Amino acid sequence: MVTIHKNERVDYLPNRALQIIQADDVFSFSIDAVLLAKFTYVPIQKGKMIDLCTGNGVIPFMLSTRSKATITGVEIQERLYDMAIRSNELNKRSDQIEFIHADINALPKEILGQQYDVVTCNPPYFEKKELSEQNVNPHLQIARHEIYCTLDDVVKTCAKLVRQKGKVALVHRPERLTDIFESMRKYRIEPKRIQFVQPKKNKEANIVLVEGIKDGKPGVKCLPTIVVYEDEKTYTKEFRAIYYG
Amino acid sequence: MVTIHKNERVDYLPNRALQIIQADDVFSFSIDAVLLAKFTYVPIQKGKMIDLCTGNGVIPFMLSTRSKATITGVEIQERLYDMAIRSNELNKRSDQIEFIHADINALPKEILGQQYDVVTCNPPYFEKKELSEQNVNPHLQIARHEIYCTLDDVVKTCAKLVRQKGKVALVHRPERLTDIFESMRKYRIEPKRIQFVQPKKNKEANIVLVEGIKDGKPGVKCLPTIVVYEDEKTYTKEFRAIYYG
Repeated sequence: MVTIHKNERVDYLPNRALQIIQADDVFSFSIDAVLLAKFTYVPIQKGKMIDLCTGNGVIPFMLSTRSKATITGVEIQERLYDMAIRSNELNKRSDQIEFIHADINALPKEILGQQYDVVTCNPPYFEKKELSEQNVNPHLQIARHEIYCTLDDVVKTCAKLVRQKGKVALVHRPERLTDIFESMRKYRIEPKRIQFVQPKKNKEANIVLVEGIKDGKPGVKCLPTIVVYEDEKTYTKEFRAIYYG
Repeated sequence: MVTIHKNERVDYLPNRALQIIQADDVFSFSIDAVLLAKFTYVPIQKGKMIDLCTGNGVIPFMLSTRSKATITGVEIQERLYDMAIRSNELNKRSDQIEFIHADINALPKEILGQQYDVVTCNPPYFEKKELSEQNVNPHLQIARHEIYCTLDDVVKTCAKLVRQKGKVALVHRPERLTDIFESMRKYRIEPKRIQFVQPKKNKEANIVLVEGIKDGKPGVKCLPTIVVYEDEKTYTKEFRAIYYG
């Protein structure tokens, strides 16, 4: 019997394959995480993947519907980690997925001793200096702002965990693309595939997906831009195919 | 009276404002150059711009239809430089545009002593190692391959010529985006605006436009992706508006 707290709800993943516990004042997944879980390369039959800043575990759950590899999710906030382990029980995926309550800058030895095929991360997007007094919900602040880890910390940890020629996949704001590329090269993760997401056809991109390879050859492919909305209310056909697919 | 050699033809720019001498076995402008001339910021009433690797001068001519600033075009190949100066006579723009026959890695002092508001460049796209024996036309080889200048040389020269807070705008292949960003930061040109061009809606981008600011604040905007073709033969409405506009 899995406990659901009274501010929580149980949602389906967009592909309806699994369920996930969410709460608006703690953590709910965004389309960014779903797109990352769709964008990243996965080993199909076996292997090891790890998702940093996993929140309520949306990326591990999504990945588990594409791959038989084992998946570890790492979350620093105990409240979110607790949601993730309860969703894991709910979905009966504990044989494939495990969650760790840890800081990505101080990972336990058992994790640091591993070499993963794929490392994913949907990190906090905003720099600490952009913190405002207005948003004082600490759970949301930690998930959104670089309070416990910077972009450079994230890429550094990804690079430590990934095997030679393994993949590192991130989702972020396009504003940070220069910083992402700089940190990736610094830690020998060569950017290989990028994809932009625009809210509408004539709007600037507000999401970028980036995949790099540890010690990969230089040269980056830019996949076709994803446009989310056809009009105010309707998703485009291409977005629906990716998001619900 | 302007001489037109027998392998040459006189074309209009896409906006039909000016004419340009071209020759398929020497140099004809590409949509890349036109898109760069449309993408880049220009000072409207006064100022100084310079275009490196100018070829037959397509970018200076295009820019002159958007701005009253003076424009210098620099070309290393004498044959192309000669086409550019004849087009300049043809268009009677010598009061606004000048062409220099020079190597961007060894520019004359008069040029190096200036500080330009805008520096543009549509450089050779391919690394020297990609040179094949198949394409032995030296004019086209020099325009397409990094024989006389590498991407890093280009960005270094742009950075030397641009004034503090001035703009540097390049067009290149998306494959080189990591290298572009790396060189830009190295020479203190902070990437500020990028735009991708896809041949079709569902195809990878094959052109990227990048604008940076000398000592600008970090943070890059990704403008809406331009899609060129609606189907095999038809340009999209958005592309026509930019290209012919």
